[in-house]
Amino acid sequence: MKKLYLLLLIFTLQLSLYSETISSPSGKITLEFVLKNNGAPSYSLKFENDQIIKFSSLGLTLKNLPSLTDGFEIVKMEKAAFNESWEPVWGEVKSIRNHYNELCVTLRKSDQQNQTLVIRFRVFDDGAGFRYEFPDKGFLTYFTVTGEKTEFALTGNHTAFWIPGDYDTNEYFYHTTRLSEVDALRGNDIHEIGTKTVIAKNAVQTPLMLKSDNGYYINIFEAAVNDYTAMHLLIDQKTFVLTSQLVPDAQGDMAHLQTPCKTPWRTIIVSKNAEDILSSKMVLNLNEPCKFEDVSWIKPQKYVGIWWEMHVGKSSWNYGDTGNIKLKTMDWKALKPNGRHGATTANAKRFIDFAAAHGFDGVLIEGWNVGWEDWWGNQKEEVFDFVTPYPDFDVEYLSRYAKEKGVKIIMHHETSSSVTNYERRLPEAIDFMKKYGYNTVKTGYVGRIIPRGEFHDGQWMVNHYTRVAEKLGENKIMVNSHESVRLSGLHRTYPNWLAAEAARGNEFNAWSRGNPPDHETILPFTRLMGGPMDYTPGIFRIKMSEWFPDKKEQVHTTLAKQLALYVTMYSPLQMAADLPEVYEKHLDAFQFIKDVAVDWDDTKILDAEPGDYIAIARKAKGKDDWFLGAITDENERTMEFELSFLEAGKKYEAVIYRDSDDAHWQKNPVAYAIEKKTVDSGSKLRVKLAASGGAAIHFSMKNR
Amino acid sequence: MKKLYLLLLIFTLQLSLYSETISSPSGKITLEFVLKNNGAPSYSLKFENDQIIKFSSLGLTLKNLPSLTDGFEIVKMEKAAFNESWEPVWGEVKSIRNHYNELCVTLRKSDQQNQTLVIRFRVFDDGAGFRYEFPDKGFLTYFTVTGEKTEFALTGNHTAFWIPGDYDTNEYFYHTTRLSEVDALRGNDIHEIGTKTVIAKNAVQTPLMLKSDNGYYINIFEAAVNDYTAMHLLIDQKTFVLTSQLVPDAQGDMAHLQTPCKTPWRTIIVSKNAEDILSSKMVLNLNEPCKFEDVSWIKPQKYVGIWWEMHVGKSSWNYGDTGNIKLKTMDWKALKPNGRHGATTANAKRFIDFAAAHGFDGVLIEGWNVGWEDWWGNQKEEVFDFVTPYPDFDVEYLSRYAKEKGVKIIMHHETSSSVTNYERRLPEAIDFMKKYGYNTVKTGYVGRIIPRGEFHDGQWMVNHYTRVAEKLGENKIMVNSHESVRLSGLHRTYPNWLAAEAARGNEFNAWSRGNPPDHETILPFTRLMGGPMDYTPGIFRIKMSEWFPDKKEQVHTTLAKQLALYVTMYSPLQMAADLPEVYEKHLDAFQFIKDVAVDWDDTKILDAEPGDYIAIARKAKGKDDWFLGAITDENERTMEFELSFLEAGKKYEAVIYRDSDDAHWQKNPVAYAIEKKTVDSGSKLRVKLAASGGAAIHFSMKNR
Repeated sequence: MKKLYLLLLIFTLQLSLYSETISSPSGKITLEFVLKNNGAPSYSLKFENDQIIKFSSLGLTLKNLPSLTDGFEIVKMEKAAFNESWEPVWGEVKSIRNHYNELCVTLRKSDQQNQTLVIRFRVFDDGAGFRYEFPDKGFLTYFTVTGEKTEFALTGNHTAFWIPGDYDTNEYFYHTTRLSEVDALRGNDIHEIGTKTVIAKNAVQTPLMLKSDNGYYINIFEAAVNDYTAMHLLIDQKTFVLTSQLVPDAQGDMAHLQTPCKTPWRTIIVSKNAEDILSSKMVLNLNEPCKFEDVSWIKPQKYVGIWWEMHVGKSSWNYGDTGNIKLKTMDWKALKPNGRHGATTANAKRFIDFAAAHGFDGVLIEGWNVGWEDWWGNQKEEVFDFVTPYPDFDVEYLSRYAKEKGVKIIMHHETSSSVTNYERRLPEAIDFMKKYGYNTVKTGYVGRIIPRGEFHDGQWMVNHYTRVAEKLGENKIMVNSHESVRLSGLHRTYPNWLAAEAARGNEFNAWSRGNPPDHETILPFTRLMGGPMDYTPGIFRIKMSEWFPDKKEQVHTTLAKQLALYVTMYSPLQMAADLPEVYEKHLDAFQFIKDVAVDWDDTKILDAEPGDYIAIARKAKGKDDWFLGAITDENERTMEFELSFLEAGKKYEAVIYRDSDDAHWQKNPVAYAIEKKTVDSGSKLRVKLAASGGAAIHFSMKNR
Repeated sequence: MKKLYLLLLIFTLQLSLYSETISSPSGKITLEFVLKNNGAPSYSLKFENDQIIKFSSLGLTLKNLPSLTDGFEIVKMEKAAFNESWEPVWGEVKSIRNHYNELCVTLRKSDQQNQTLVIRFRVFDDGAGFRYEFPDKGFLTYFTVTGEKTEFALTGNHTAFWIPGDYDTNEYFYHTTRLSEVDALRGNDIHEIGTKTVIAKNAVQTPLMLKSDNGYYINIFEAAVNDYTAMHLLIDQKTFVLTSQLVPDAQGDMAHLQTPCKTPWRTIIVSKNAEDILSSKMVLNLNEPCKFEDVSWIKPQKYVGIWWEMHVGKSSWNYGDTGNIKLKTMDWKALKPNGRHGATTANAKRFIDFAAAHGFDGVLIEGWNVGWEDWWGNQKEEVFDFVTPYPDFDVEYLSRYAKEKGVKIIMHHETSSSVTNYERRLPEAIDFMKKYGYNTVKTGYVGRIIPRGEFHDGQWMVNHYTRVAEKLGENKIMVNSHESVRLSGLHRTYPNWLAAEAARGNEFNAWSRGNPPDHETILPFTRLMGGPMDYTPGIFRIKMSEWFPDKKEQVHTTLAKQLALYVTMYSPLQMAADLPEVYEKHLDAFQFIKDVAVDWDDTKILDAEPGDYIAIARKAKGKDDWFLGAITDENERTMEFELSFLEAGKKYEAVIYRDSDDAHWQKNPVAYAIEKKTVDSGSKLRVKLAASGGAAIHFSMKNR
């Protein structure tokens, strides 16, 4: 026995040079850091006694320098505990607890002039995050990262909810397959996405949602992506080890850094309950606090807009129909109008009136500014100037009109991915916005990036999006970025960055094969793990054939599900995306959109299964009202809710917006029913959801 | 005989489909356009009966489209004549004659959906220029050029005055060799140039100066380089055919164009007299007229500056000596000053006082703004902000002080080639300049370009330099661009673009092997063919050992040659580059710099031979004064001048600043003599120039 023990000891010593364990505050999660014999750092993660991540390598490769993957020795290990609550400027909840134990490992390569690498681990009760840090004492000042070797060694062939790893776009619909069956190149027949750069057959994007056969929900993502590239993952389809895949710049390098600096946090959220994934606050907690002193000008908002009518083909962004515009010399008044321009003064007034009548904060107007005639597909540099309206759009008049009506016009800056053009014009565009009273802008990045060779997910572009959020914030302007990198919690630091698209939104339903019925049951487990999405729900005219009889496209949900999305798809910026004349035909259902809040005191994830269904209840900020949203995938589903989240001892009127019994997303999508009930915290509510259906419930307190 | 004639006719018909000849107004120059049997366009050039350019191909290759090199048919040929005089805002002469015959050929590829190419030829009495034009009627709208196939088929192994073809730098000293001996890779040992991208062994830059064995001077260049790349040349070292070599973007494409558009003009200037090359106005004549309505704010100027002292090592641009600056978070007041900062308030005052005392318009101050500690060699994006002064530089005070003294401070914007940073900061930088009364800025592009992968000579950067000139012009600010693309006459269109460096300037003498004695006898035949150069002459302390005894470097000329450069190196912006304390020791010689004009009514090229000597006389604008400058290469030389350019019947006092009899650029460079003489238009003056010496003469009229 002694001999065996001795052998084991020696074996252990030979395998590992150093090992340190750190647990979460409750002890549920355990992370082990090991520096192997060859000086290579690694980690593993357990949920109670179950392995979640097996021993996984860490490190990076550098340009013209030895790689930071092995040959290290430990300089020091520091442990710390942190427990604090903080209040976001807006959010799903009023107060967020940031509670973790931290292990900070300082490593040094003795053969590399004492090159120092710090790895900081934070272990929460729902998982762990870690990042690399590069102090400025030591060998490195300026250096270039050529690759990152962070691994996530999974324990099996988990089910993955994935989209193809792609340097330029995240607008894919999700596939649900085993890791072994992932084939990102299959995504290359997705012609409805204009700009794609698929990485490899075995590449997927993060956030990556996984479910193991033994019932664990595992979410791999990153937090605080700034001054670095976004992280994709390559799957070893035999060993199920995932490896980080960074995004190259125009010359093939990944990131150019200057010490002191740090990478984004790599995050692993794990639970036996899917609901815990959705309620995790890890990504926000790993981000830097709010940078602005004064946040009084930052306002969650609901808006309508001249937008969907272009997607359905009723109007055009462009004023004329010529294909060859020179921005600097074009005589816009001489351009023959095509008669279908969406952004006219008259149409804008109509929307402003509608917004005012129904209590909406803003009106988005796309196509107001010159350049849309040949904006797409030409990688044109001088494409938009962001300050010249079309001849039929009176900026001055509408600025006054909107102000009188108490409504804000939301500015639109489609950059066409000509980002050098946008950056040099931005100061003038900001002056224009301030002059005419715009306090929110939707930006867009459709097309191939200029600087040529850069990618939407690369370091230069990541820095651009942050630069823009920061600059707009300095000017008290809020931003909603479309086709940008997906959010990773930076909106904690820049709370004027209300939302992003950065995923496949509702618009794809208007002109393509659309979004499958399970799409919205996956997005909160993936895209929304990093922050709000401007999904633009609220389409009531579900089938496009009602606009043009020959059209086959449709929104892939019932109307009731569209209402539920206002609760299940969290965003402080929500659009009622359809047209006024459509809402006016369904004012009863529209009432839910008018009533639903966009900022919350509290959120309860009632029931959720990625790819199948989601049910969430939220309490409006500073009010007694609760809102519940429940959605299902292609399967009809009966769901039962215990209303224990309501305030005990109070009665509530519940207005239930649900699918009719015969509703079906394809056959009968607009069939809905509205019921009223009196309930309290002891009540149970049962609702039947149609195939790709939903239910939206507004609880208002009777007699406080 | 008949049979032979018939054979010849058939032979001719088989060789050429179409041929058209056009001559210059005097008939001296003849250009022949030929469309060959396979529909390939070509041209040739003659000077009287002598072939200068043999039949040379024309055309371009496009991305994903058939090339525009053959398969054409002629749609039409149009001839025109043009004869006009125009006055530049500033220049070597008051009035310029633009006199040419034009042939415009419209070609169509019948197999390419009628893709149309226009080639426009303008034939002057000193050569020809031609360019490609792409009308917007026809197949092309947006297209990408992947290469240009313009040839210049020379008649022999001419002597060439060349620098290596390089996408990033033009700061080489010249080689004088036969075309067969050109080896651009030899230039790769030029370590004193920081950023180099040599194209190929057989690549040279334009302007290219050539001399044939039968006595022709031939200059190949381009005019109006805008929205296109610069043109380099590849030499076939057996056939002596030169082919255009464009500059790629980050992805390997050359130019992205949108019709209607045109390439720059390719120019061939030819004469039996070297002087005619220097007096040619073809490049200016091929440029677009001045774009500004109001040009009253554009002023030729002489300046001094806090600049040379950094190059000799007496001062530093940087305030502190740390190697790791984060622009946004750096606490500049906490930075320990190194005690050698050049741009201090006290030093600036000193220069302002000196400028005021001696009648200089401006004081350039480099190193006034934060960021210089680690600005170079790191390809740092957030490197300068252009608005934050160092703690020891009081912008406000100096703005008022300079104004009181009637002197302008010249702004300095070293971009460090982080051009995306410069463009997004430029509006704020312009506001800063206007606030503090700066009306001229020197820009710099030292280092590797960001957007990464772009080159100094590429289309994106060419557009950047023009954008900057245009934007500054809209704000009534003049510009002097260093390390930019070389000028190609765009200063006719944007006369606020006073000068550029864009070649190896005087500064290289301070800290490297320097500029060979023939350097300044070549530059007017090359770099200056496109426009003025800010050569920064006027160094009186010739040997750097006078600053620091261990230094071996020196200016490679005598002091008298430094004076002559103010006449031979044309620029409306001229620096007296040395330090006040140096000039104060030589106020007699300095007088020439104080007196010399920077804007001219008339210019006479008295005598010139590339690589050997140059002598020029110029009449000050609006004055009776004439200035003469004569310089020689490493050979001492006696030159005799007929003063017939002086106004007949008038007497002039000539103040002659010349080398002493024992002067020598190495052994005795500062030895000079000043003589006075009375002369008139019938006089002859003989001057002895030392090895790399010169003479500068100021003629002032006695008693108008």
